[in-house]
Amino acid sequence: MEFDLIHRYFKTPFGALLQANPDTVLFGIGDDCARLQLSPGHHLFTSTDTLVEGVHFFSDDPAHAVGWKALACNLSDLAACGASPLGFTLNLSLPAVNEHWLAGFSAGLLEVATRFTCPLVGGDTTSAGTNALKTLSITVFGQAPASHQGFNRAHASVGEEIWVSGTPGLARLGLLLQYQKRGRLERICHASELPQVKALLAAMPAHLQERAVGQLGMPVPRLELGLQLRGLASACLDLSDGLSGDLAHIAKASGVATVLFQASLESIWGNLWPELDQHAEAADLLKTLLAQTLKGGDDFELCWTAQPKHRDAIQFTGHGLSCVGIVEAGSGVALQERGGLRTSLSGLSYNHFAESPF
Amino acid sequence: MEFDLIHRYFKTPFGALLQANPDTVLFGIGDDCARLQLSPGHHLFTSTDTLVEGVHFFSDDPAHAVGWKALACNLSDLAACGASPLGFTLNLSLPAVNEHWLAGFSAGLLEVATRFTCPLVGGDTTSAGTNALKTLSITVFGQAPASHQGFNRAHASVGEEIWVSGTPGLARLGLLLQYQKRGRLERICHASELPQVKALLAAMPAHLQERAVGQLGMPVPRLELGLQLRGLASACLDLSDGLSGDLAHIAKASGVATVLFQASLESIWGNLWPELDQHAEAADLLKTLLAQTLKGGDDFELCWTAQPKHRDAIQFTGHGLSCVGIVEAGSGVALQERGGLRTSLSGLSYNHFAESPF
Repeated sequence: MEFDLIHRYFKTPFGALLQANPDTVLFGIGDDCARLQLSPGHHLFTSTDTLVEGVHFFSDDPAHAVGWKALACNLSDLAACGASPLGFTLNLSLPAVNEHWLAGFSAGLLEVATRFTCPLVGGDTTSAGTNALKTLSITVFGQAPASHQGFNRAHASVGEEIWVSGTPGLARLGLLLQYQKRGRLERICHASELPQVKALLAAMPAHLQERAVGQLGMPVPRLELGLQLRGLASACLDLSDGLSGDLAHIAKASGVATVLFQASLESIWGNLWPELDQHAEAADLLKTLLAQTLKGGDDFELCWTAQPKHRDAIQFTGHGLSCVGIVEAGSGVALQERGGLRTSLSGLSYNHFAESPF
Repeated sequence: MEFDLIHRYFKTPFGALLQANPDTVLFGIGDDCARLQLSPGHHLFTSTDTLVEGVHFFSDDPAHAVGWKALACNLSDLAACGASPLGFTLNLSLPAVNEHWLAGFSAGLLEVATRFTCPLVGGDTTSAGTNALKTLSITVFGQAPASHQGFNRAHASVGEEIWVSGTPGLARLGLLLQYQKRGRLERICHASELPQVKALLAAMPAHLQERAVGQLGMPVPRLELGLQLRGLASACLDLSDGLSGDLAHIAKASGVATVLFQASLESIWGNLWPELDQHAEAADLLKTLLAQTLKGGDDFELCWTAQPKHRDAIQFTGHGLSCVGIVEAGSGVALQERGGLRTSLSGLSYNHFAESPF
């Protein structure tokens, strides 16, 4: 049974992608190991992520979106290192054989794999009892030239600028909407912020709600941007613990302070949500939006530091990139308000153990 | 919390191993990706396996043994390809933070990692709700020279001999003992074979019982043997679906028939269990032993085919290796009895979906 399933939903549909990359994947699914050939003078980059039903996705999420996200969030780690994909392995632990779910999952996975030329090279499928939670682990392999310095989070220097792609916090709004839809908003919001969060979600236009839910459920890994940032970015990571949490990683690893400009973050939101300004409660809504932006996780956008001399080259890549702060001497993460006042940001990051919906 | 745990049980204890391999692991735990450097002219080999509590290990198994087995069974796949380890990643999905369990698990993992010089280069830890099952996925990376043909299971040829290391079926006896100890033997034995299996287990001397349980719980990956078989073995795999099931994979992939010699299998058991011959029910016990040997899984010994001219070179490696059969024209797996009579073996392999203890 296991072999049939693997054939039907993985080996067969992913076969074409394997065959399209014969110089890289010398042997894929079907033996003890996959065998891959890196380009000469390249290093191997690898990353792995687990998605657990009810923790990282909802039980009723479409299987297609789960498949998409599982691979996309792993590829995002390669993007954050400026590496290009070689392939991935999949570990699937399922409560029972649900072919309908497997078909959707496989299709979503294949869509991302095809778009970013990342063949499935191996994996393991296990049935884990009727009460088990679906658990998916993916490990991606990528490569970059040995000469590529890498975007280690310890490489940020004083005087550099802090950049982000996309709209940090958008996925957080998607998460809030998904919990609200299920009547469980209080699980991820403190009681004190609940009224403001509800007001914010109610004010969101339908197109923005859709986009926020999409950013959460089907994020697009910034692989192309990652390659373009080679030689430009110093420290880089993908936003998965929220802007303040992820910048805290950079600050700690590099021994620097990171300062975010409130005006820059508001300006990003202003581009995406111009109607907000006309709202009667605009000031309050913006305050809530900013708070959620800072603590939100799972955006899978890139966040990096770069020397000011690279500003034009970065802008030129044309990915809707924004400079949102600076690196200074010191430690920690601070928010600089429009008036110049600074607030320390700490303890705002997303923590899977603390915020598990169970 | 998550970061503290990762530091205490993974980053800190495995740090020395990382530092001992600076030419291979250029960057390990703590960034979006690990960065590894293969030796020039080498290919990457990768394999992944998931262990689920209650399916692949018992809930009350010592955490140390679980950590050992999780890495050992993955390294066994590298061994089966003649590759040497570079590093591994770990995905841990746990019902709750149990530090006692984590400490034991980490120690077992570190023991295997150190013995086979396989540093931990990355991973992901997730809390999955109080009722979740512990789920561990490991992905190993290894390398072998581009000139190494590989031991693809499609490479077996007519006229080659079939070899095994160790005592295939020993882990199956360990599994039977573990189920018997828990009063659940009927879960993995058909009612018709239950009396014979009980008689077999009762006849096992204590030292052999201990060894069987050890083979199941803490198998030793045959990495050294895998390297020595380069240039000698044609097809090779590690025994994880049982001798008959795994030979069926080789037979199918290579388009050949595989024939096992009953006398050879009995001779392997005779070496390990010389007292069996003196038992009043020796003939019946041996019959049961053979049946369990053929269907048993998870031995993590190597099984390979090789041209007869390589016989001496293989014997010379000195790992307790046995020639147990031959490759012929045809298809499927057969057992040749002492008298020359042949029985077709099919449907005897271990199947996780069918035999899940839930």
